[in-house]
Amino acid sequence: MSRPDLSPTERSTVARGRHRAVTDRAVLDSVLDAGLICHLAVVVDGAPVVLPTGYGRDGDTLYLHGSTGARSLRLLADGVPGCVSVTLLDGVVYARSAFHHSVNYRSAVIHGQLVPVTDEAAKLHGLRVLTEHLAPGSWQRTRQPDRRELAATMLLALDLTEASVKVRAEGPVDDEQDLDAPVWAGVLPLRRVWGEPRPCANLADGIPVPLEVAERDQPG
Amino acid sequence: MSRPDLSPTERSTVARGRHRAVTDRAVLDSVLDAGLICHLAVVVDGAPVVLPTGYGRDGDTLYLHGSTGARSLRLLADGVPGCVSVTLLDGVVYARSAFHHSVNYRSAVIHGQLVPVTDEAAKLHGLRVLTEHLAPGSWQRTRQPDRRELAATMLLALDLTEASVKVRAEGPVDDEQDLDAPVWAGVLPLRRVWGEPRPCANLADGIPVPLEVAERDQPG
Repeated sequence: MSRPDLSPTERSTVARGRHRAVTDRAVLDSVLDAGLICHLAVVVDGAPVVLPTGYGRDGDTLYLHGSTGARSLRLLADGVPGCVSVTLLDGVVYARSAFHHSVNYRSAVIHGQLVPVTDEAAKLHGLRVLTEHLAPGSWQRTRQPDRRELAATMLLALDLTEASVKVRAEGPVDDEQDLDAPVWAGVLPLRRVWGEPRPCANLADGIPVPLEVAERDQPG
Repeated sequence: MSRPDLSPTERSTVARGRHRAVTDRAVLDSVLDAGLICHLAVVVDGAPVVLPTGYGRDGDTLYLHGSTGARSLRLLADGVPGCVSVTLLDGVVYARSAFHHSVNYRSAVIHGQLVPVTDEAAKLHGLRVLTEHLAPGSWQRTRQPDRRELAATMLLALDLTEASVKVRAEGPVDDEQDLDAPVWAGVLPLRRVWGEPRPCANLADGIPVPLEVAERDQPG
């Protein structure tokens, strides 16, 4: 089935920096798959609240989770709208003028209603997607959630329909008048790297670091 | 002058994960100084919108900026409340159960009214703070904003009074029942590193990479 382009609504249509907008869903997927955490916004008592949290993507569904005691999640489960942003910072852009300094980045913003997932099998599936996004290979290797843990966890699903994606991946865009200035201009790239795995202090003897941890792909 | 602790209001008091809450303002400063971008939330047409953007800190003031044409910034300048989050992801925590998987992080959330800065000298000061946060050393080295650029830029100031800070920096916290499971548990640290500076394609000959770029402190 062909997937429609992104940005079908006014609020998901990029207004500022239109030339950075991308409507290809494959780019949305790649941004979400490369990120590790998102920022979730919800309106509480008339004011916006933004919080960092984990997520996972399965096809055109983004899963988020948290404690059933978290007020922001309860509000979302009750139907107030949410907004999620995932941003990857790829470098600092040094221009010849202060005004044209910038950053290279990949960012996704998704608007919509987050729907609570309550069916037990569907909930386990969503939690598996979240766990595997954060720690690939962990779902099979570790103890899976029991009834008490499932009951304490709220799982929310957000459809990846109303989304905007922006990408900047280039050098400085200086004014013509500044090009001859004797000022260095360019990009200082930024990337994320894993360090050496640190075993838990009370880990039993003889348990090696799993390959999927020791050789986890660099997030870049 | 002594600085009061953080979290003076209900909404800036950490409700979930209280033991991760930090009320020392020096920790807030260190999180903001270590971050490079923030996520800014604002309510637009009754729904939350969260966007990544740059920032800079000067004492107890956080500066944000953008185009005067950006609707979210215009709403904030008109007095609707805002919320800003800066998050540093420090590692993935692998537990013996899927439920106790987690992340190590440092995060700050600031609530409040963003106040437009319009006085020219004050605006230049704020833009200097923003530029120096993103690219230390650049303000003096590059062409500073002219009148046209200043007029096109909206600068907003947010007081760092109503803020919450959370820090997680430890190994997995597994259930007693799982401690003897033959499952690896520990932390896979994550850090950010600068790559090699890439000069602009049309840079004039003989302009070396400035020391503050070539030897910029790793963000960690």
